[in-house]
Amino acid sequence: MRAVPRCVPCVLEIAVNTVERAVPEDRQKEAILAATERVSELYRMEPTPQPPRLGTEAQRTVMKYSEDPDPYREEKRRANERAAAVARELESDLENIEDPEELLKRAAAAAIVGNTIDFAVAGHEFDLDELREEISSAEFAVFDLKPEDLRGARVLYLCDNAGEIALDKLLIEVLVEELECDVVVAVRGGPIVNDATREDAEQVGITEICDVIDTGAEMLGLLATEVSEEFAEELSSADVVISKGQGNFESIPEEPFPDVPVYFLLRAKCEPVAEELGVEVGSNVALRWEPEDENVRRWREIVR
Amino acid sequence: MRAVPRCVPCVLEIAVNTVERAVPEDRQKEAILAATERVSELYRMEPTPQPPRLGTEAQRTVMKYSEDPDPYREEKRRANERAAAVARELESDLENIEDPEELLKRAAAAAIVGNTIDFAVAGHEFDLDELREEISSAEFAVFDLKPEDLRGARVLYLCDNAGEIALDKLLIEVLVEELECDVVVAVRGGPIVNDATREDAEQVGITEICDVIDTGAEMLGLLATEVSEEFAEELSSADVVISKGQGNFESIPEEPFPDVPVYFLLRAKCEPVAEELGVEVGSNVALRWEPEDENVRRWREIVR
Repeated sequence: MRAVPRCVPCVLEIAVNTVERAVPEDRQKEAILAATERVSELYRMEPTPQPPRLGTEAQRTVMKYSEDPDPYREEKRRANERAAAVARELESDLENIEDPEELLKRAAAAAIVGNTIDFAVAGHEFDLDELREEISSAEFAVFDLKPEDLRGARVLYLCDNAGEIALDKLLIEVLVEELECDVVVAVRGGPIVNDATREDAEQVGITEICDVIDTGAEMLGLLATEVSEEFAEELSSADVVISKGQGNFESIPEEPFPDVPVYFLLRAKCEPVAEELGVEVGSNVALRWEPEDENVRRWREIVR
Repeated sequence: MRAVPRCVPCVLEIAVNTVERAVPEDRQKEAILAATERVSELYRMEPTPQPPRLGTEAQRTVMKYSEDPDPYREEKRRANERAAAVARELESDLENIEDPEELLKRAAAAAIVGNTIDFAVAGHEFDLDELREEISSAEFAVFDLKPEDLRGARVLYLCDNAGEIALDKLLIEVLVEELECDVVVAVRGGPIVNDATREDAEQVGITEICDVIDTGAEMLGLLATEVSEEFAEELSSADVVISKGQGNFESIPEEPFPDVPVYFLLRAKCEPVAEELGVEVGSNVALRWEPEDENVRRWREIVR
């Protein structure tokens, strides 16, 4: 999808969060001015860029003023710890589900609900019982995942945030153990906001159950021109991609992409994304998307 | 106070709200780009402008693309209606309070709590009992209003939003009837976001209990170089100003101002304002502020 006016203040607000964490006070004004001008310059382009392009460039701009290459490190570490504790409890709930369809739905619900709880808020105590209840009762506005379409497949699992990644692990375990998929997990290629990197995958133990690669760059979403050769190869050779979160959904359908179907797993957290999906804000979605010929043609142009 | 980095996305978000209401879809991108560039240009200035200057100019910029001179008109009308219904119920609560100090505090609480309820949200039903409870139990982090300092004074009452203005009327009645003040009410000089204008003062019946003037321009907060001669005269001849809301508090202490003390009545709704006041976000405040010699000197330079 293409950025809409509402994306401009939204990406700048996230840039301010980074500025307040990482930029010395005497350079904060300069940093946010630089980000504002960069976002304005990019948003002016035609065709209008996808929101993650604005967000990525806003983050890169303010990080030039930062003295800390990973200002969300501690918050990510705490989020992983707390989400992992929740995941351990949920694991036993999932073990009791026999029906593969229901098991897949509940594991996907855990991964999506994980995206909505602000594990990063310092001191924010979440209620484990409420979380279990939310996951077990989560409804989907769209749910295209089917065990028979995934069984035995080579899956590239594209992560979103730290914290959440501990709940992704539950779904990854279902894919590996129940559906006998060959799963490769991809994290961001470098620290950007609270997005998951290799460090987070290691912390929650995903590296113990499958291969973990990275996309090749610190970027919100997936921008084909920036992925590493290794990632491009994994993507091309996957049978399906499971993609978590809004950023990937906002970027992938407009990007060069190999001939591989994608399941977008996300909660629609803002109006522009909900509108793009044709659902209400707050809906849970697991949407199957097939690349268009145009995506595939452009992918072949950049990946030889 | 001077704008901080966080003010940039905040004023742009309010600009987007106006754009989505009032600008035809094919010009929305152009409108928000123009606002972004205008805000960036102003924020670059030294000394850093006050947040209401950024907000006012962002609104003026997007309104150049609007086909409706008052896009919040219907929302303001509905907010006034609903708040007036609440005010009628609260009036009897206030009538039962005999102690002038307590009466002043509860009437001020009504005016401040009125600022925090989003009457403008379509379909949002508020609970009258909850509102009464919130007003009667509202605590103040700062409360400098004293009946003896106000009794018989000439008061210029500077309004903030529509809706809220119906609850301001309760405080104005206490000033007029109990404290025998000579009150002049000032509204914005033209439509800007959901701020109260003469139309709103008329709708809630304030024009029936005291004189109503306007500041001379559509502006969030009070920018001395833009006020009308009539407003400047009223301001100069007042004994005290009662000023509602964040915008006035964010602008006045940095502006040319006559030698008149101001009581800032507001709920601190954002981190930068709470920090400026030295209170927690969400605090109710009624702060007495005295102009500095520098404010008065600059006022005399522009008002002869």
